[in-house]
Amino acid sequence: MEEQTIRITLARGEERRIKGGHPWVFSNEIREIRGEKSPGAAAEIYDAGGGFLGTGYYNPHSLIAARLLSRERTDIDTAAFFRERIGWAAELRRRLYPDLTTCRVVHGEGDFLPGLVVDRYGDWLSIQILTAGMERRREAIVAALVELFAPRGIIARNDVAVRGLEGLDERIEVLCGEIPETVEAVEHGLRFRVDLAGGQKTGHFLDQKENHLVLKGMAAGRRVLDCFCYSGSWGVHAARFGAAEVTCVDISERAAALARENATLNGVEKVVRTEVCDAFERLRSLRHEGRRFDVVVLDPPAFVKSRKQLKEAEKGYLTINRRGMELLEEGGYLITCTCSYHMGREPFRELLAQAARQAGRPMRLVESRSQAPDHPVLLSVPETEYLKCFILQAV
Amino acid sequence: MEEQTIRITLARGEERRIKGGHPWVFSNEIREIRGEKSPGAAAEIYDAGGGFLGTGYYNPHSLIAARLLSRERTDIDTAAFFRERIGWAAELRRRLYPDLTTCRVVHGEGDFLPGLVVDRYGDWLSIQILTAGMERRREAIVAALVELFAPRGIIARNDVAVRGLEGLDERIEVLCGEIPETVEAVEHGLRFRVDLAGGQKTGHFLDQKENHLVLKGMAAGRRVLDCFCYSGSWGVHAARFGAAEVTCVDISERAAALARENATLNGVEKVVRTEVCDAFERLRSLRHEGRRFDVVVLDPPAFVKSRKQLKEAEKGYLTINRRGMELLEEGGYLITCTCSYHMGREPFRELLAQAARQAGRPMRLVESRSQAPDHPVLLSVPETEYLKCFILQAV
Repeated sequence: MEEQTIRITLARGEERRIKGGHPWVFSNEIREIRGEKSPGAAAEIYDAGGGFLGTGYYNPHSLIAARLLSRERTDIDTAAFFRERIGWAAELRRRLYPDLTTCRVVHGEGDFLPGLVVDRYGDWLSIQILTAGMERRREAIVAALVELFAPRGIIARNDVAVRGLEGLDERIEVLCGEIPETVEAVEHGLRFRVDLAGGQKTGHFLDQKENHLVLKGMAAGRRVLDCFCYSGSWGVHAARFGAAEVTCVDISERAAALARENATLNGVEKVVRTEVCDAFERLRSLRHEGRRFDVVVLDPPAFVKSRKQLKEAEKGYLTINRRGMELLEEGGYLITCTCSYHMGREPFRELLAQAARQAGRPMRLVESRSQAPDHPVLLSVPETEYLKCFILQAV
Repeated sequence: MEEQTIRITLARGEERRIKGGHPWVFSNEIREIRGEKSPGAAAEIYDAGGGFLGTGYYNPHSLIAARLLSRERTDIDTAAFFRERIGWAAELRRRLYPDLTTCRVVHGEGDFLPGLVVDRYGDWLSIQILTAGMERRREAIVAALVELFAPRGIIARNDVAVRGLEGLDERIEVLCGEIPETVEAVEHGLRFRVDLAGGQKTGHFLDQKENHLVLKGMAAGRRVLDCFCYSGSWGVHAARFGAAEVTCVDISERAAALARENATLNGVEKVVRTEVCDAFERLRSLRHEGRRFDVVVLDPPAFVKSRKQLKEAEKGYLTINRRGMELLEEGGYLITCTCSYHMGREPFRELLAQAARQAGRPMRLVESRSQAPDHPVLLSVPETEYLKCFILQAV
């Protein structure tokens, strides 16, 4: 079936963002659309004066009505297009991590492939298709991935709420090959069991790779608290960097079991203790018990999924950070993260300052970090950066 | 002579910043002052209700009328006070850099010693006294430094404009011992000749220590351009990390000579070329000559000394960054810095995005870095952070 390319003309002046390097067109910026307005249709985008801006795809159901994939006239409906584009992204990772086969290979807009996420776990791929435009090109994408990586299996972790904004349902599907119950990810020589079908996101949090290394030196001989531990990647790193005692807390029995398993897998099961409980509560009760820690890690799931929830989420961040600071020994470190795009870096910093005031603990800002470089950030697309990881030290 | 402590009472509600951990009192926040209002006088600070806030010093000539040194009733007019406070700061450095004798030992507000900067270059100290309060306590400070470090010489690099805001003159003075024509700073095994009396700031830029390491891997086999090179610390690092060719540009003949000398000192004089010319101009002419680089470093002196100059300075940053980006090979890196507190991190990032648009070069944001940890940043005192160092990559 021949795909029909539609023609989108923007209202006067609305080409600015696009010309500045951003790939999104909002529905209220469009003056005219010619052609069949079907979800995911390929589209050529023009400014009000008829100047060509680029090729992308369209979705009548989304506020982000179009996303650009190319600044040229390009056929985006072929496996060849995706083979080239994904191959180029993979090449960046090969240069970043010559020895690593577990990493994010495609980071959506950050790799000029809006709406597509591909995480590689050795012989398996775990992907997310987040837009109607990418959903429509699923076959071409899978064909390109098979050609590039010859995976033993590809799973689509499309159980994400943002698909709703595109009129897509949420589901988990094996797209090709077979997906074992667990696979293994290797990070800095440590092994982590990953549940591709049932774990959070695509199974493992690849974005904290470099950040885990800050524990080196910091954790040796120390007591470490890892809150919202999930599969224990912070806690296991701390133990392997010589921590005397690591407490991993997660509300999910399944997560805690995975953390225990990963501790055993790395020979640190005697150092790592897991507790199944609500981290908000546990942070409070630990204080009442008079417990103190040298390092506290707060790496919660996104409290903010949309701008509307921001106020509520800020309260949550404020609470856990205040409580985390209260548990610190003098000179102790707080490693605190937010993976919500809507929680900006400066506002998060100010929130942390407020938490320090409330806790009555003056804090040094040691470092302000971001996501691993296999999750590339484009200067012109602020939305490509979402992770903030602050290292603070109690004075 | 017995020093008299004055009593400062703030207007209602003006204690908020102080209670939040900030050490400054602005003149318009004060309701009443009892005692002799002389520059640098020790002061006890109270809120409007008579609640004690802390001990600091006062200056009737400054907009920042008082700065706190302690949250307790403390005699700040003794060498013992400074010995303890500076000793505590020195201990932090010993933990950060067990093997380093060249580092910043006191970073003003960041070490709870507002108005005092102490840089250690092995057996020599180069200090800055920035407020009347610290000027008045110079003897106690010098006595404490002598006791703690037994230096062979202490020089005061008080040739800084901010002293004018405090009613102090600008001058360079040897406070004790002797200061040789040059001393040596060792950084990552590299040697740098430092001109304590005649160099910029206290002689060497200790705040870029960790940032220089980003050149590792990035520079090997590459062509590197180091603009505003001063004594060549970026360029010499690039050369030692295997750069094929390094061009160091500085408008000062003296700086270029120092850079050449430092290249020779580290055996990379065949790789490092220096050019005495205006970096703004040279960035333009290099482009006209069709030259391209794999790494461009832009580490200019502060264009913004005050908020008033910000607009003008932004133009300067925009120009050099646009030109720097234009010189990059595909995949090439831009290391770009601002050491102006008034040029905030987010505004600088937006300025870089604008430069990228103007240059027509899409850029990845690889990393956003800050000053070395011997220049500690307090979460509650934003003014303690001034250095922003962005690593960008041309896509």
